[in-house]
Amino acid sequence: MSKPQPLSGFPELLPRHRIVEQQVVDHLRHAFELHGFANVQTRSVEPMDQLLRKGETSKEVYVLRRLQADDANSDAGLGLHFDLTVPFARYVLENSGKLQFPFRRYQIQPCWRGERPQDGRYREFWQADIDIVDRDTLPAHYEIEIPLVMADALRGLPLPGITIHVNNRKLSQGFYEGLGIGDPEETLRIVDKLDKIGEEAVVRELQEKVGASLDQAEKCLALAKISSTDTSFADEVRALGVKGDVLEEGLEALTELVEVANKRAPGLVRADMSIARGLDYYTGTVYETFIDGQRDLGSICSGGRYDTLASDGKTSYPGVGISLGVSRLLVPMLRAGRLDASREVPTCVLVALSDEESRWEASDVAAKLRERGIAAQVAPAAQKYGKQIKFADKRGIPFVLFPATEEGGPEVRDIRSGEQEPVDLDSWTPPAADLKPGIVAAE
Amino acid sequence: MSKPQPLSGFPELLPRHRIVEQQVVDHLRHAFELHGFANVQTRSVEPMDQLLRKGETSKEVYVLRRLQADDANSDAGLGLHFDLTVPFARYVLENSGKLQFPFRRYQIQPCWRGERPQDGRYREFWQADIDIVDRDTLPAHYEIEIPLVMADALRGLPLPGITIHVNNRKLSQGFYEGLGIGDPEETLRIVDKLDKIGEEAVVRELQEKVGASLDQAEKCLALAKISSTDTSFADEVRALGVKGDVLEEGLEALTELVEVANKRAPGLVRADMSIARGLDYYTGTVYETFIDGQRDLGSICSGGRYDTLASDGKTSYPGVGISLGVSRLLVPMLRAGRLDASREVPTCVLVALSDEESRWEASDVAAKLRERGIAAQVAPAAQKYGKQIKFADKRGIPFVLFPATEEGGPEVRDIRSGEQEPVDLDSWTPPAADLKPGIVAAE
Repeated sequence: MSKPQPLSGFPELLPRHRIVEQQVVDHLRHAFELHGFANVQTRSVEPMDQLLRKGETSKEVYVLRRLQADDANSDAGLGLHFDLTVPFARYVLENSGKLQFPFRRYQIQPCWRGERPQDGRYREFWQADIDIVDRDTLPAHYEIEIPLVMADALRGLPLPGITIHVNNRKLSQGFYEGLGIGDPEETLRIVDKLDKIGEEAVVRELQEKVGASLDQAEKCLALAKISSTDTSFADEVRALGVKGDVLEEGLEALTELVEVANKRAPGLVRADMSIARGLDYYTGTVYETFIDGQRDLGSICSGGRYDTLASDGKTSYPGVGISLGVSRLLVPMLRAGRLDASREVPTCVLVALSDEESRWEASDVAAKLRERGIAAQVAPAAQKYGKQIKFADKRGIPFVLFPATEEGGPEVRDIRSGEQEPVDLDSWTPPAADLKPGIVAAE
Repeated sequence: MSKPQPLSGFPELLPRHRIVEQQVVDHLRHAFELHGFANVQTRSVEPMDQLLRKGETSKEVYVLRRLQADDANSDAGLGLHFDLTVPFARYVLENSGKLQFPFRRYQIQPCWRGERPQDGRYREFWQADIDIVDRDTLPAHYEIEIPLVMADALRGLPLPGITIHVNNRKLSQGFYEGLGIGDPEETLRIVDKLDKIGEEAVVRELQEKVGASLDQAEKCLALAKISSTDTSFADEVRALGVKGDVLEEGLEALTELVEVANKRAPGLVRADMSIARGLDYYTGTVYETFIDGQRDLGSICSGGRYDTLASDGKTSYPGVGISLGVSRLLVPMLRAGRLDASREVPTCVLVALSDEESRWEASDVAAKLRERGIAAQVAPAAQKYGKQIKFADKRGIPFVLFPATEEGGPEVRDIRSGEQEPVDLDSWTPPAADLKPGIVAAE
């Protein structure tokens, strides 16, 4: 077998980069749990009819087939999920009798899309989602809480600054309806492409595809250009002269969100009427998150409120959620060297080996350290001590421990300073910063 | 959409069971890291030629196809991995220039096999693997270390007792060669089926498929029936009168393993000549692990030494590893109610709400608790306090905190005892056992 090549769109990390990813995910997980979110893990596959039910994602789905199946389509009923929202909605319906509502859950898993890999988009990528789902009705305060929880979870991580851009479907759709536009949903999808296709094309498509007049199309564009970090957006929207109950509901909801967020997390949110979200299922607040100064990279954390995604006909389970693109955020930073781990192994102490016969005694020494939570491994071979120290050095293992010999008791060496001193195996503890590898952020 | 039904072979857990699974996985992860194993996460897909390269697994692979691909086979070059060993071997080759050898890694991910779901076998299942891979040569002491690490990782978990059954390919193959049997690998595969097809069928197949004489076939069977928890197996094997250098090498290696393991983890291993492992790539020690008294459930933790799995023609990377079937072990125990979580949410404290207007003040109280690592959430609505306490009770949240009102300072109530007392928000800490949900094992 010749040397394998990476598969485009399926990023894999070296061990030291994986340490960073793992610590970021652990940090998120801990934060979500502090906020009372329970973890759920759904299977990787869904029936194809589920996957194709909503939104414009059908082209991206990976269909499964068993290699030995009788014909090429015999197993084509299953595909890999392309997000964590659709599987979660299905999970809620399937287990509705066994879950307590409102149900707060987080989910951190890979998703798959058969897209052309480009622009930080991957064919396999990890997402971290939080959602709150209730039965029949969902209080609006969860639409405010969700972005605050995500921001809280990201706090303390060495990541670039972000702003969560918020809008409300009621505001946009109410505005289009107030304007007299016939197909508000298609209008949303066209406005959603503003960043990609530009203003002129949006105005043209609105005229061609939803039959808007030039004046209507320009008002839609004018709405999309309104944006503020305070609540002044509402007056700007009203100044466009469109009226309607749904629009007013949207304005009030978004105003409250901005007010609360500005008190609790100043600088976190921006009301931004260009945020539309392509997916059909959103019905209230919608979120997209941009790294400050890098909106061209696209949203790294998106979501919104959905009222009808999970419904069995009798009961509906409205929800609101937000999804962090873990791979999308981290992989480019890791590849650019902007994040790294302080060492590439969990090992804190290498137990040196004087001769091969003493391997299992050295192993007892390592076990003693592990009992007190200190990661330790025994040297692979009884080479010269200089070589064993080099072994530790290459991996960033900070300490080498020399077990007791006939000449004297055990000693521990900090291989960075070269300082070596006698050690009591039952009490010695490394400095807290050395116990586990940490994340190092480049300037 | 009507109520969805579970997919056979794709187990999913309720939140409280997921807590158990997550804590077991965290426990394993922590233990592997204490032993200096670095985590690796490989992509879910491998090129089909990789997946079909070794062993008898081709029939089980799930092939991927993009739904919108031009023809049914255009993307058929990729399949979902069926274990974590093949992807790891590919990862080692692909990144050989960037890894430090010997390389100790653990990997905890789902695998997929399109088998008929039955007998505790799933189509999607989680495995936890540890492997040590070196360049060119791999010292034999790692074959002893690997099962000891896995046993150490399982220690402290509320799981049934296990025994790791060990054999050595050199012993079996050397024995068959010494006997004069022409196809030792096919012989191994036939002997591997002993549990499934029985003694008679093994003897018959050995005669029919590898041309063994009745005497040779019966000697193979006699070998497979040798088993001991001490090193007495070696004399029993030698008593069968077969000789050869490879056989002797295998006997010595297995004897050393049993000796060391019996000192370091008494009762853990059993030398068992019936352990053959179906896969082609093993070349030294092999492991299978049975729950005590339940060998019929099959092995929950298997592996072995492989010398040629990862080789680019110039350099080879011999390794040894063992793979714990996390789903296979846990899902039946969870479904049988033998393991459970002490509550179904991470929340330790529910902050009660006197009226909807005070939601964000209550939220400040929750934030204060979270700063000190106490998981807290605010009640979903300002219902009567009795209802809010019931909300906590239904989820197993142990404490309800009533924020300060005009009448008095904040109070905390242990809803199990009903005791309620004034609380200092800056210092109150729940008992350690209540801070997070724990695993509860049924008698």
